[in-house]
Amino acid sequence: MQGFGPTIFAEMSALAARTGSLNLGQGFPDSDGPSSLLEDAVDAIRAGRNQYPPGSGEPELLAAVAEHQHRFHGLAVDPATEVLVTTGATEAVAASVLALCEPGDEVIVLEPAYDAYAAAIALAGGVQRSVPLRATATGFTVDADALRAAFSERTRLLLLNTPHNPTGAVLTAAELAVVAELAAAHDVVVVTDEVYEHLVYDGLRHLPIATLPGMAERTLTVSSAGKTFSVTGWKVGWLTGPADLVTAVRTVKQFVTFSGGAPFQPAVARALALPDAFFAELAGDHQRRRDLLCEGLRAAGFEVRVPAGSYFVVADPRPLGFDDGTQLCRRLPELAGVVGVPVSAFCTPGGEAAAEVRPLVRFTFCKRDAVLSEAVERLQRLR
Amino acid sequence: MQGFGPTIFAEMSALAARTGSLNLGQGFPDSDGPSSLLEDAVDAIRAGRNQYPPGSGEPELLAAVAEHQHRFHGLAVDPATEVLVTTGATEAVAASVLALCEPGDEVIVLEPAYDAYAAAIALAGGVQRSVPLRATATGFTVDADALRAAFSERTRLLLLNTPHNPTGAVLTAAELAVVAELAAAHDVVVVTDEVYEHLVYDGLRHLPIATLPGMAERTLTVSSAGKTFSVTGWKVGWLTGPADLVTAVRTVKQFVTFSGGAPFQPAVARALALPDAFFAELAGDHQRRRDLLCEGLRAAGFEVRVPAGSYFVVADPRPLGFDDGTQLCRRLPELAGVVGVPVSAFCTPGGEAAAEVRPLVRFTFCKRDAVLSEAVERLQRLR
Ligand SMILES: CSCCC(=O)C(=O)O
Ligand SMILES: CSCCC(=O)C(=O)O
Repeated sequence: MQGFGPTIFAEMSALAARTGSLNLGQGFPDSDGPSSLLEDAVDAIRAGRNQYPPGSGEPELLAAVAEHQHRFHGLAVDPATEVLVTTGATEAVAASVLALCEPGDEVIVLEPAYDAYAAAIALAGGVQRSVPLRATATGFTVDADALRAAFSERTRLLLLNTPHNPTGAVLTAAELAVVAELAAAHDVVVVTDEVYEHLVYDGLRHLPIATLPGMAERTLTVSSAGKTFSVTGWKVGWLTGPADLVTAVRTVKQFVTFSGGAPFQPAVARALALPDAFFAELAGDHQRRRDLLCEGLRAAGFEVRVPAGSYFVVADPRPLGFDDGTQLCRRLPELAGVVGVPVSAFCTPGGEAAAEVRPLVRFTFCKRDAVLSEAVERLQRLR
Repeated sequence: MQGFGPTIFAEMSALAARTGSLNLGQGFPDSDGPSSLLEDAVDAIRAGRNQYPPGSGEPELLAAVAEHQHRFHGLAVDPATEVLVTTGATEAVAASVLALCEPGDEVIVLEPAYDAYAAAIALAGGVQRSVPLRATATGFTVDADALRAAFSERTRLLLLNTPHNPTGAVLTAAELAVVAELAAAHDVVVVTDEVYEHLVYDGLRHLPIATLPGMAERTLTVSSAGKTFSVTGWKVGWLTGPADLVTAVRTVKQFVTFSGGAPFQPAVARALALPDAFFAELAGDHQRRRDLLCEGLRAAGFEVRVPAGSYFVVADPRPLGFDDGTQLCRRLPELAGVVGVPVSAFCTPGGEAAAEVRPLVRFTFCKRDAVLSEAVERLQRLR
């Protein structure tokens, strides 16, 4: 783990606290998810659901995850053998990589990428092969040729993330088809982080890669309650996939944390069964906040690619005369009383993707309207 | 992770559920910890403590852990740099081993040992050096000569556990002095799992190895709320130690689970400050249950070593004509409607310790008196 320090999120949240800035850095909401969920957790605590859950997770949550995969994605998943509850998506990804990647195996990552992916690969002794996403006028896309070139004899895993953090890209059916074809051709397992599955805007739909022909058998699909139900601190996540892969991940996971979140598990199980209106309202709320932030950033002089999904918007400060996102993020508290995260923090230092995104800053819009309004107001000071 | 399957605890709890047996296998209490703790968690959920805690843990819990180490053990710990909150003791141990053990490094383990230690070493690519504890007429003790012989140039870590699972041994000052002297002489870091620190009986005291001269600087002390406050499913643990070691573990931990248990953290902070009477009552209660189980096991024909600490008693079924604990545990549901855990499951298969403990079965006494009474009643059927 040489070369790894505190996560950029910890660093930036500490900077926000220290300077009293508005924190649009780390992606966590400033209001908690449905009160029915909170009260179900309260009931579970009082009802004595406070001891070790089974290593795979509480049966009612396993069933609810399977039911959710069917209801929203048409995926058929056996709750008894094809679902594993984890300590958030982070543990799901880390345990998957530790379970499936032997020292020296290669793991393909589309960059920019959530920083825990590189760390998990390093812990497993794997070798990361980074493929930069291409920035277009409207967003970020998969470069099929670059992706093809990244596969080798040693490729064991591909880590995917859609809707994508930090760019907000929602991979299209065509992009996913390319990934799927290459994964199948090279007999590679795809671990796909889909925690923003319900945060997709403008009538678009999230498409899990596991739904593509032939992919269910080679895909571990990761999600969590944190982002969908606005309880990021509960760390209740899960993954679904074929029984043999799930078993391998469970074997590692049971020795990393064993199990956890006992009273949260039945509560999350009930939340997963909330009516469609809940999920539609969640997306609608965040779409409104996204628009508020994007418009404000533009008014403040940033160039903005409007994201199709996730909590995040990537802003280009070059029109304001800044060409290094890392430097700008360090100065933003003093210049404007706001905190963002440099997109290059999601890239291998010195790599191609890092160079490509060098100027860019990621801001989150998972905050109350008043906070977003105040933040864009303050960012006007950059002019 | 080749060779690792489901944990013995998962397997035995599943066996208990399937056969409707009384589960004296997995160590979790059947009544929850103090209602003040549960209600503090309820309050924290309702007060909106549901988002990511800082990577090190909530400041009030860091402070409470430091205060606890001082109050009970006279250890001076800086809450800002020398404490890390983890997803239970399991994550604390796994992240410590992953952080401090490079592939090929040797790690000394006293066997029998909690099964997650061997798994963490395997994940890190380390080499386990097992040192059997010696069974005496009254308990299990450290064999100084065997321990001395286990050290080499490559030894990087020693995993300690006191009060000890599964044997219930509470290491004496003399035993700890031997460990400390050897660790210092070979410049080895000690990771010590002390989750049963408040479960020590007959007026004995738990002695953390970090309190021995020169040891604070080379020891990571692990504990958790699960066993002390009877909330094993919350998975709120922590470790304390010198800042450089804690920083190394935090770096790994943040990529394994990031953080967790948000509303539990302030609740556990308050529980750590409960008056001495709470901790005395906890130990008193468990001592009574220990005695109930030990007497019952003896009446049923087992030979029993009365444990000085922990949740567990080790019973020898040879007077009843059984000489293989693994086989007996498989048959116990049908023979007596009770589940225990073979002590050999805590040992390297085929190793010296496994041979030594082959007949033995571990039973937990962290259950209500009525359950214990019923269990010993049923075990009479073995005669
Ligand atoms: C686990 S901390 C990071 C939260 C998050 O998902 C993000 O800000 O990218
Ligand atoms: C984490 S499951 C095991 C519980 C326990 O500590 C034990 O039974 O030994």
